[in-house]
Amino acid sequence: MKIAVDAMGGDYAPKEIVEGIELARDAYPDIEFLLFGLTDQIQKYLKDDTRIEVKQADEVIEMGDEPVKAVRTKKQSSMVLAATSVKEGQADAFFSAGNTGAILASGLFIIGRIKGIDRPGLATTLPVITKDDQKNFVMLDVGANADTKVLNMYQYALMGKYYASNVMKVNNPRVGLLNNGTEADKGDMDHRKVHDLLADDSDIHFIGNVESRELLNGAADVVVTDGFTGNAVLKSIEGTALSMLHLIKGSIMSGGMTSKLGAAMLKGTFGQIAKSMDYSQYGGAVLMGVKAPVVKTHGSSKAPTVKNTIGQIKQMIDSKMISDLNNYLNSHTDQLQEIKETIKNSK
Amino acid sequence: MKIAVDAMGGDYAPKEIVEGIELARDAYPDIEFLLFGLTDQIQKYLKDDTRIEVKQADEVIEMGDEPVKAVRTKKQSSMVLAATSVKEGQADAFFSAGNTGAILASGLFIIGRIKGIDRPGLATTLPVITKDDQKNFVMLDVGANADTKVLNMYQYALMGKYYASNVMKVNNPRVGLLNNGTEADKGDMDHRKVHDLLADDSDIHFIGNVESRELLNGAADVVVTDGFTGNAVLKSIEGTALSMLHLIKGSIMSGGMTSKLGAAMLKGTFGQIAKSMDYSQYGGAVLMGVKAPVVKTHGSSKAPTVKNTIGQIKQMIDSKMISDLNNYLNSHTDQLQEIKETIKNSK
Repeated sequence: MKIAVDAMGGDYAPKEIVEGIELARDAYPDIEFLLFGLTDQIQKYLKDDTRIEVKQADEVIEMGDEPVKAVRTKKQSSMVLAATSVKEGQADAFFSAGNTGAILASGLFIIGRIKGIDRPGLATTLPVITKDDQKNFVMLDVGANADTKVLNMYQYALMGKYYASNVMKVNNPRVGLLNNGTEADKGDMDHRKVHDLLADDSDIHFIGNVESRELLNGAADVVVTDGFTGNAVLKSIEGTALSMLHLIKGSIMSGGMTSKLGAAMLKGTFGQIAKSMDYSQYGGAVLMGVKAPVVKTHGSSKAPTVKNTIGQIKQMIDSKMISDLNNYLNSHTDQLQEIKETIKNSK
Repeated sequence: MKIAVDAMGGDYAPKEIVEGIELARDAYPDIEFLLFGLTDQIQKYLKDDTRIEVKQADEVIEMGDEPVKAVRTKKQSSMVLAATSVKEGQADAFFSAGNTGAILASGLFIIGRIKGIDRPGLATTLPVITKDDQKNFVMLDVGANADTKVLNMYQYALMGKYYASNVMKVNNPRVGLLNNGTEADKGDMDHRKVHDLLADDSDIHFIGNVESRELLNGAADVVVTDGFTGNAVLKSIEGTALSMLHLIKGSIMSGGMTSKLGAAMLKGTFGQIAKSMDYSQYGGAVLMGVKAPVVKTHGSSKAPTVKNTIGQIKQMIDSKMISDLNNYLNSHTDQLQEIKETIKNSK
């Protein structure tokens, strides 16, 4: 398999990207890489070009660029060229740590939607903290779309199911709908309709509404949400975890000798907590619903995270997740058409 | 001033409610109380009835009752009778630790909306962790309405401003709109419209969009949000804080002797953290936009939290928050009408 890499995206590009790709190359002998970017800069960090082909890209899409405009005008950017190589069949998947909006636009406009999916959604894997038999869950959409409709959320459930089954290897994954209460009649009209659609679908193991308070307790394997709420919830979880670590650090530093000694004794514990909350270990955010794996890691990612994310992409390719989803969509066109009619008639 | 108390609402009612009211009575010499509930049960815990009048209520609205139906049919319940006493002018404010939906319905249908407010919203005070000059912020709506419209969010901004100014004593409070990015064009159509309305309003100190990641860092004094997102964000913050405390505890317990000794040395630190995250110290959730203070504490509240919440209600009454808001609405009817037209025409 071959992965197209935007070597210029991210706060530490191209150095950490190149180093991460070398780690991944050493870990996964069946992967080849196409690295797009400023060749002279990439070559500075590339120690060994075994299974790594460097391709010159004259432009770079910056973090501050307006996403759609950047993808349309910077035709020679590392991101656009990497996405184009996937579209043209030279590579099987796309990876970047760059501008999130531009990655979404590259996936959507260059690589293209799967037939049967109206709007791709962004999926993130988050840790489960209080359960021994569940390590993590996947949540989507976490921000690809600000205006999400009933049909989109129904399709997120389908896509999340395939991600959990194929990539996370969860047998018959429990799908929950993020809502403001667990009762079936909770939420606005759209969420109630999604609830009823999922409850009626025998192909989805729907466990009903879940509340954001219970996500890290493992309320579901797949959490379906509209992009606006999902984005707000993801950022709340991140913000609260960071604030609490800050609070602990601040209290220890102002707590005198005993407190500092105690902290030294708990160093292992704090390391474990930081590791549990560090969801980059589960890989990057995946744009679900496009024709090839399009995966984005955090802009501040360093080489080990880049390597983990490549492992996640390999899992997506090995498990044939996208073709399984495709097969399902193709063999259920009648059922999916019926669902569209139901939604239309319920308006 | 006189406060009507639903003595039967909450997990530890009437014991902790009665004990909390006695604490508040001792702390605030200018408050009298009307306690509604099963008289014989209340009398068991009431040690001194100075400034506390007990009123018999034959029924109790349970946590599992369907809210609107319960308020309509249980006319002799402690909650309905307490709310009715406020409506009839026998008391100045309403307090309960009971069924949230029923408290909202009691506020809305019995005590009634302020003229000029289309839908009341539920406001919660949350802690700011990483700033020395800001202790907390108020966020609304956190769940009174699942289907929030542009006009409602605009009115939440107004109400939040009065709460921050009068009750939290913040000078010229910074109002932010919770959105999925800080740029002005972020969010769905409704949030963009709210952004533009607030940006154009010279009576509101609008600082633009804020992201949920920055809330505990003190991004704003007043955070305006639709009830669906606000509810999800509030529950994410609670859930993440609880999960992290659980994680810390679990790591320490499984960490051997050194770890346990370290934890003992950090006991003060952990206490401080738990206190910082315990937002019950800031009082209860306030239903903003009704004719009198309607305040709800957590169902699991004990006597000290009940006392704190009464202090918060006293602050609302002392600061004349509701009449200040009323005066503003009455003296700006033309401006408010114009805003309604703008929203209507932008559809």
